[in-house]
Amino acid sequence: MAATADAAGCVFCDIVAGREPASVVYSDETVLALLDIRPLTTGHLMVIPRAHAPYLADLDPAVGGHMFRVAQQMAAALRRSGLPCQGVNLFLADGEAAFQEVFHVHLHVLPRNRGDGFRIHAKWRSPSRAELDSVAEKVRAGGNRPRH
Amino acid sequence: MAATADAAGCVFCDIVAGREPASVVYSDETVLALLDIRPLTTGHLMVIPRAHAPYLADLDPAVGGHMFRVAQQMAAALRRSGLPCQGVNLFLADGEAAFQEVFHVHLHVLPRNRGDGFRIHAKWRSPSRAELDSVAEKVRAGGNRPRH
Repeated sequence: MAATADAAGCVFCDIVAGREPASVVYSDETVLALLDIRPLTTGHLMVIPRAHAPYLADLDPAVGGHMFRVAQQMAAALRRSGLPCQGVNLFLADGEAAFQEVFHVHLHVLPRNRGDGFRIHAKWRSPSRAELDSVAEKVRAGGNRPRH
Repeated sequence: MAATADAAGCVFCDIVAGREPASVVYSDETVLALLDIRPLTTGHLMVIPRAHAPYLADLDPAVGGHMFRVAQQMAAALRRSGLPCQGVNLFLADGEAAFQEVFHVHLHVLPRNRGDGFRIHAKWRSPSRAELDSVAEKVRAGGNRPRH
């Protein structure tokens, strides 16, 4: 599914169109930044494209690049806001297996502070260089493979 | 500290300069993408700028935007690589309180699969709209405040 102007039943499209309330912190012709209504920390916000794009693969790369630049600006704004903000995480979930819940691309900008309760659990590994090189070969091949 | 060409003692600068080995999956004039040597999942890679920038605030926004577009490309490459990849997370840590460990900006691209052991623990809240609006006001003011 490619990007479309306004997808029926999409809560972020409803926000962009002004049909649903939002606490907007930034807005331009291409993107909006708004507070997450279920924040992990105070000031937790998201940068979203105005045009509907369910997944990263549907997102115009020029819009993606702009989302990141606005996320940089928002990180700076959070650090100057007076809200507790010793650090910032950017996080994006693409696909249900990656914890995506709203299928309109969104880039989280998360103020962080020591002891804020946010933790990542994962199984870190330390593969050999040979194993890493073999994985890299597959990723490079994937990059050279046509999309369809 | 602003972006510099090559910072002494920075492992990512050593990789960019070819002084340290890396399993590189993508390279252009501005950025590199390479496998993380402590992967959370197989294919876990990072997009890094060639020019040293310790924090997000030091990163040229044009380079940041390019990093995101390359991360989109890498997410697509992972999905076409044959490696297990039902979803993808993008993750960036800015500051020690946000779990930054190498002080040369890097954007993680993480292949995800159901049951892969990656989890986020956090204290989700559901503030009132009035509280959200009051936080949004502070973030907007931070965005309008000069940097120095």
